[in-house]
Amino acid sequence: MEGKLTIFAGSSSPRLTQQICERLGVEPGKITLSRFKSGEIYVHYEQSVRNRDVFLVQSLSHPVNEMFVELLVMIDAAKRASARTINIIMPYYGYARQERKSAPREPISAKMVADVLTTAGANRVVTIDLHAPAIQGFFNIPVDHLTALDLMTEYLRSKEIYKPVIVSPDAGRASMAEKLASGLDAPFAMMIKKRPAHNQSVITHVIGDVADHTPIIIEDLIDTGSTIVNSVEGLKERGAREAIVCATHGLFSDNGLQRLRHPSISQVVITDSIAQPEPHEPYVHVLSVAPMLARATQYILDGGSIATLFKDQGI
Amino acid sequence: MEGKLTIFAGSSSPRLTQQICERLGVEPGKITLSRFKSGEIYVHYEQSVRNRDVFLVQSLSHPVNEMFVELLVMIDAAKRASARTINIIMPYYGYARQERKSAPREPISAKMVADVLTTAGANRVVTIDLHAPAIQGFFNIPVDHLTALDLMTEYLRSKEIYKPVIVSPDAGRASMAEKLASGLDAPFAMMIKKRPAHNQSVITHVIGDVADHTPIIIEDLIDTGSTIVNSVEGLKERGAREAIVCATHGLFSDNGLQRLRHPSISQVVITDSIAQPEPHEPYVHVLSVAPMLARATQYILDGGSIATLFKDQGI
Amino acid sequence: MEGKLTIFAGSSSPRLTQQICERLGVEPGKITLSRFKSGEIYVHYEQSVRNRDVFLVQSLSHPVNEMFVELLVMIDAAKRASARTINIIMPYYGYARQERKSAPREPISAKMVADVLTTAGANRVVTIDLHAPAIQGFFNIPVDHLTALDLMTEYLRSKEIYKPVIVSPDAGRASMAEKLASGLDAPFAMMIKKRPAHNQSVITHVIGDVADHTPIIIEDLIDTGSTIVNSVEGLKERGAREAIVCATHGLFSDNGLQRLRHPSISQVVITDSIAQPEPHEPYVHVLSVAPMLARATQYILDGGSIATLFKDQGI
Amino acid sequence: MEGKLTIFAGSSSPRLTQQICERLGVEPGKITLSRFKSGEIYVHYEQSVRNRDVFLVQSLSHPVNEMFVELLVMIDAAKRASARTINIIMPYYGYARQERKSAPREPISAKMVADVLTTAGANRVVTIDLHAPAIQGFFNIPVDHLTALDLMTEYLRSKEIYKPVIVSPDAGRASMAEKLASGLDAPFAMMIKKRPAHNQSVITHVIGDVADHTPIIIEDLIDTGSTIVNSVEGLKERGAREAIVCATHGLFSDNGLQRLRHPSISQVVITDSIAQPEPHEPYVHVLSVAPMLARATQYILDGGSIATLFKDQGI
Amino acid sequence: MEGKLTIFAGSSSPRLTQQICERLGVEPGKITLSRFKSGEIYVHYEQSVRNRDVFLVQSLSHPVNEMFVELLVMIDAAKRASARTINIIMPYYGYARQERKSAPREPISAKMVADVLTTAGANRVVTIDLHAPAIQGFFNIPVDHLTALDLMTEYLRSKEIYKPVIVSPDAGRASMAEKLASGLDAPFAMMIKKRPAHNQSVITHVIGDVADHTPIIIEDLIDTGSTIVNSVEGLKERGAREAIVCATHGLFSDNGLQRLRHPSISQVVITDSIAQPEPHEPYVHVLSVAPMLARATQYILDGGSIATLFKDQGI
Amino acid sequence: MEGKLTIFAGSSSPRLTQQICERLGVEPGKITLSRFKSGEIYVHYEQSVRNRDVFLVQSLSHPVNEMFVELLVMIDAAKRASARTINIIMPYYGYARQERKSAPREPISAKMVADVLTTAGANRVVTIDLHAPAIQGFFNIPVDHLTALDLMTEYLRSKEIYKPVIVSPDAGRASMAEKLASGLDAPFAMMIKKRPAHNQSVITHVIGDVADHTPIIIEDLIDTGSTIVNSVEGLKERGAREAIVCATHGLFSDNGLQRLRHPSISQVVITDSIAQPEPHEPYVHVLSVAPMLARATQYILDGGSIATLFKDQGI
Repeated sequence: MEGKLTIFAGSSSPRLTQQICERLGVEPGKITLSRFKSGEIYVHYEQSVRNRDVFLVQSLSHPVNEMFVELLVMIDAAKRASARTINIIMPYYGYARQERKSAPREPISAKMVADVLTTAGANRVVTIDLHAPAIQGFFNIPVDHLTALDLMTEYLRSKEIYKPVIVSPDAGRASMAEKLASGLDAPFAMMIKKRPAHNQSVITHVIGDVADHTPIIIEDLIDTGSTIVNSVEGLKERGAREAIVCATHGLFSDNGLQRLRHPSISQVVITDSIAQPEPHEPYVHVLSVAPMLARATQYILDGGSIATLFKDQGI
Repeated sequence: MEGKLTIFAGSSSPRLTQQICERLGVEPGKITLSRFKSGEIYVHYEQSVRNRDVFLVQSLSHPVNEMFVELLVMIDAAKRASARTINIIMPYYGYARQERKSAPREPISAKMVADVLTTAGANRVVTIDLHAPAIQGFFNIPVDHLTALDLMTEYLRSKEIYKPVIVSPDAGRASMAEKLASGLDAPFAMMIKKRPAHNQSVITHVIGDVADHTPIIIEDLIDTGSTIVNSVEGLKERGAREAIVCATHGLFSDNGLQRLRHPSISQVVITDSIAQPEPHEPYVHVLSVAPMLARATQYILDGGSIATLFKDQGI
Repeated sequence: MEGKLTIFAGSSSPRLTQQICERLGVEPGKITLSRFKSGEIYVHYEQSVRNRDVFLVQSLSHPVNEMFVELLVMIDAAKRASARTINIIMPYYGYARQERKSAPREPISAKMVADVLTTAGANRVVTIDLHAPAIQGFFNIPVDHLTALDLMTEYLRSKEIYKPVIVSPDAGRASMAEKLASGLDAPFAMMIKKRPAHNQSVITHVIGDVADHTPIIIEDLIDTGSTIVNSVEGLKERGAREAIVCATHGLFSDNGLQRLRHPSISQVVITDSIAQPEPHEPYVHVLSVAPMLARATQYILDGGSIATLFKDQGI
Repeated sequence: MEGKLTIFAGSSSPRLTQQICERLGVEPGKITLSRFKSGEIYVHYEQSVRNRDVFLVQSLSHPVNEMFVELLVMIDAAKRASARTINIIMPYYGYARQERKSAPREPISAKMVADVLTTAGANRVVTIDLHAPAIQGFFNIPVDHLTALDLMTEYLRSKEIYKPVIVSPDAGRASMAEKLASGLDAPFAMMIKKRPAHNQSVITHVIGDVADHTPIIIEDLIDTGSTIVNSVEGLKERGAREAIVCATHGLFSDNGLQRLRHPSISQVVITDSIAQPEPHEPYVHVLSVAPMLARATQYILDGGSIATLFKDQGI
Repeated sequence: MEGKLTIFAGSSSPRLTQQICERLGVEPGKITLSRFKSGEIYVHYEQSVRNRDVFLVQSLSHPVNEMFVELLVMIDAAKRASARTINIIMPYYGYARQERKSAPREPISAKMVADVLTTAGANRVVTIDLHAPAIQGFFNIPVDHLTALDLMTEYLRSKEIYKPVIVSPDAGRASMAEKLASGLDAPFAMMIKKRPAHNQSVITHVIGDVADHTPIIIEDLIDTGSTIVNSVEGLKERGAREAIVCATHGLFSDNGLQRLRHPSISQVVITDSIAQPEPHEPYVHVLSVAPMLARATQYILDGGSIATLFKDQGI
Repeated sequence: MEGKLTIFAGSSSPRLTQQICERLGVEPGKITLSRFKSGEIYVHYEQSVRNRDVFLVQSLSHPVNEMFVELLVMIDAAKRASARTINIIMPYYGYARQERKSAPREPISAKMVADVLTTAGANRVVTIDLHAPAIQGFFNIPVDHLTALDLMTEYLRSKEIYKPVIVSPDAGRASMAEKLASGLDAPFAMMIKKRPAHNQSVITHVIGDVADHTPIIIEDLIDTGSTIVNSVEGLKERGAREAIVCATHGLFSDNGLQRLRHPSISQVVITDSIAQPEPHEPYVHVLSVAPMLARATQYILDGGSIATLFKDQGI
């Protein structure tokens, strides 16, 4: 396989790329990524990509627009250098929350991202736990949509948790939470919230028993963390113990991680879909998506069913 | 305006087209729609469409594939006859529930519909209460996404309803239900369901008070009606009175309308986005989307803001 | 070869697919094709198609629009599941008779079909005896245009036919008829018709001797069969014996097959390009296109010249 | 109208353009068309085309490839100069006879022409008497397909012709000939030919009475004229009088016009769809398509039905 | 005109937009441009753009990738809000210096920018003094390529300059410099440089007399300003007086403007194609491109020839 | 490799194709290229190209439009015959000098050529010493841009040249000349010219010492040769010896080669990128690009880095 494949890291994801490559027994491709004084991005592949299946690993994490344009430039250069296929491993899909118009004259930026990646020359996208699964339909190239749920389940199962209850912070994550609950054989709860103003949320109901339980809140993404803090405080008021907060993507905007250093939170579990500082704060546990991405890469090249990577194929 | 505009009815929507035209003071365009013995569709515009803004009115209702292909053939013929623009008024967007993969190796049929309409030559789509708003992002042509919510609100407000409570049958409709609740100044409730098997659903929770209230269930679509029946029975068990069932699209597959002639349902309120028999059963009330579509058409031609058609622009 | 290839049957063609697969020594791919109560089509590939050369076998036979949309949905699902190539084996190309405008403001539906298949994701079309060969030019993907003429010739040569004469029912089939005549070393005749009204035709001339001969009428398609009946009666009046009617595609709309149970017709010879009931009426003989399609499939994968499948390459 | 419209002549059609402009009361647009020493074509619009509806008049006549590339360069320049629409008036569509594969591994050059014109930036094509009407389907932009048949009919009716009979030289022109016969209230005949070798044709039958009649042979195109000569000699042998030869397009390759100075031909009637020398030989009569093209241009701009230009709309 | 036109400012260009609007007698369109905590851009048009000719003014200046993505999101939102046309006024085209591969496996980022703008929905680009004119050919939409040269000429002519000589800093600007020389009736000189290492340049020759002259160096762009400083020092060594430095685009990366506060530079003349602080340093003179852009906008809408804006049309 | 590859010669390049094939140990593919009496091009591949990597060798040399359209027809036929990839080896890219607008309302013909080749079905272009490197950016398919500079260097180094000086005839070729100078370890000179009228040029400066040196003038292309003659005469006046004229492409329009039989020119060195008569005049030396194109072909198929073909990768 390695005869045909080269994996290159974008600026957002050098460590993750290194780990994927180690799993596959290949060296990361050599590439120069730099910026001119004008801020323009410059890309140069330091080794031939002619006829090769090129994988570009780039999360659209901070600073999102830089990472996005860098990826476009990387794709353009690979296309012009005669890569056989250009596969984008984008563990975190930025702009995914702008996937529909919630007011007139708004953009659907997640679609713009999809269109523009395809125009630049991408042949495939591999991504993890999209905020909205309909984004797959924004593409006409294949999208391999992976999930970190099995990783979470396995990790949580390995811990002794006092009376766990899986909590969906809103209706949008209910299906994810139910799968986790079933995987852990734990009860399930859901919070119902109101948003009296932008960036504010008030918990109005919590369905299911949380008192004297350890709530495990499951999210796709932690951004600033303030709704999470809101949630755990609400759970605390309802008698819950210290919460475990799980999310695939740890974006942690605006000092988001500090915000989660909170008396009602015992642990934050995330993945390295977005690069995390190392070593992390002790209350943070980082699961690696590298093995999953390595196997997906192998299946993409060899033709196996990626669905077999997951217990529950319905992602 | 009528100097430039011609509106043609597809087989699914002659009456609705007639009503839109009456509102606009124009005659529906003359068109032959027929089928050969082989089942192939034949279309012939009986009047010139050269340089005209053509509007084709077609819901993807029963039989959905016939209506879909007929629309494609209508678009093709209009394009070749030099229509200036081809605007699709598709009050009900069939296949909208297949807007994402819920298992590997499934289609995203709602995207296929979008791509194919665009390829055939459509320049714009006008539709009502899409099952999933992200479908707007499946198009790169403008989509005018209207809502029948104001119609519903106005109708329900005109009735004397005993202690109404707006009920969202699941999390997906919560935002629609909340808007209706706010419009009617009524409380809001939501049902939490489990799906132990395909086509089965069991109510596990009802959030909010329904006992001794008149539940107003709000849906985008009534298909076979069996989940609705399930819902009203669950509400009944919780002490609710006879329910009013509201939905924008009355598809009524598999004798769905008969299924709703049910002791716990006092009324079914739908729109004519999908053509309904006339006169309808007494327990059915049909609101007309024709005025709304007529005004949207006018704004499309004259350049006004369609958002002004609605109280709450966030659809 | 079988390492890379999977062949899936659409609803129109399970038996033909089975036979192609047997020839190639492969199993037909497992696929779920179903319809929701709403009439919407659902497709699910039950096995991985990642990196595989997928062949979808679907004739656009009755009900043509259902078969067409099903094929579109099958293509969409295969594309999203990372099939390497998507090859459409469409033995009968529905809508092929709408390949040009014969009046203003008509569609060119055969082009719409071509455009839409390509948009959905088809990479190649294999078809048989197109009604109009210019339809190949409607595509920018490769079209392998096969012919059943050699099958017909071989079958007819194996029979003892009394003074055969090959009859072209109109000018459009003259070239096909001449090739058959040459293959059978038989004389050739052509009928000249007038169409005083739609769906009516009157024979005005028959060029060539038919009296005391066995006319072998050759067509690409039998639809309702009424022009065929018209033709054989005209030949009878001119002294011909009982006719043999040959056509590649037996569509038999509107009880077309019963119409051909006619005193002046001794036999109807068709292929299984469109699925036929089995066993068929005794006056019907069905030739199988499966061996030809199997060999074409092999050549498509291995790179041989499909032209070598045929005696006369000029199809 | 002239406020928006500018018509430019390609090298093939200056006189025709002048005449169209006179009919419309506009001046032809000023344009430089030249060739560098290297043979490369240079185009420069000498007046602004910004926001204008540009019409480019160019027949693909001798030398066909020069005319074709010149047209592409004209389109490119108009597109980059912000023309509102680019309308191609191509009275004669070169390469129209290569509209299907008659052997494997042939091009479909007529489709290539269509694709390439569209890519360069054409928005519409106006053409006359296409060799094969399915070529309309090669485009996804509107094609206005005009016919010179009414011109021919009117001209022939104005002459005193002794016992005319309309002769279709082969099956492909039968429909055109029948229309002419009906317009002149004259009988109809058709020739049946064999092609024993390439560029050879032998008449095997003539259907209909030609003896002591004046045959009026109708063709879309006269190329070298040798099949025409062949035809008139065959008619002469069957007792016909001197023939009148009618064709829309007088290409006259390889001294084709001299070849028609023939004792059995009394007159050759063509149009100026392809520029003709002036004055022409006395046995040649040239009808002008300029009035028809002028009216079509007007309807394209004003939105009338071009079908009303013709008696029989079925072209 | 103002009935149809709305001009919106991107974040890079509010003042320039304001000035264009004042010239045209219209109000700038109301638009919200903001960033989420995650760094994602949010755009919302505060007024209807339906059927309007929308002009978006955005230079790709610092921070270039932010400005670029913001523009993409603005285009996407305008397209979905049914703008009639989307016209990009991009006074400074970032990434224009990456217009060709100077080594293998490099991107052609200027082409990527062009492709991506078109995909997002742009219908036209208006830009000024492109670094490489071939970039016009990267688009298939119209590009209006303006020049600030007349502005420069007029300004310089209004000053009393002691023995001016126009200096092209390298061969690439020779044509621009010659035009300026001819406009000012001044002699012309050119510098020949070597680049012994990246970011270093050594003057090897100066063609033409500069001793005791005032050199006027003309550039398209000042980036960091270090090559300019290098140039003026070289001129000084050759006996030149204090130089005037002229450039269309004042990017001034990395404190570039401070670098030009230099004893051998008497004045820096730039335009506001890129927004400049106000008031500027006394040695800096800013010419406004707003009148030129306003007139270009008017011509785009009304259909005049933009070439008439310039003395010498060969830009 | 030869198992998959077939190379076909266009009319411009049979000998070059033969030589490439010999290097690769394959037979040139059999193809019929002919012209009908109407001037239309006919192409027929005489052997199967199904699933093969097809290479078409065609320089856009005299007559350029014929060669261009022939290439388009060759591509169309290969595409329809199921070639796996279609690779265009176009040693000389005609129309490359029209790569930007130098006046309003001009075409950018070099872009039109790029777009049209891609539309017809080309997957890759291999070319040599483009007049303007930005033309690579006109394509979104890979372009392998080779250079004959190493061939030139090697040839010149093998000759005993008296005091050579490399002369760039204008600023546009300075970079090419500098590379040659560095390869030969020779000094470098550049001519500065004025163009008082179209097709006239006057040398105003020569930078660098040429007196008593042998000037080696380096060009990408010799067209009519008159500017070359102008240059050598100017060098003679400045005391130079007989010049050696080097150019990649010998187009020699308008008897260009005779024009170079000049007392001040000792030798003309070109390549066979454009076919040259054989044997050539004694003062002409033709270097073969066949080995370079053969190796490039091999690398394209096998995936090596074409950059390794060249000493200096920056082309």
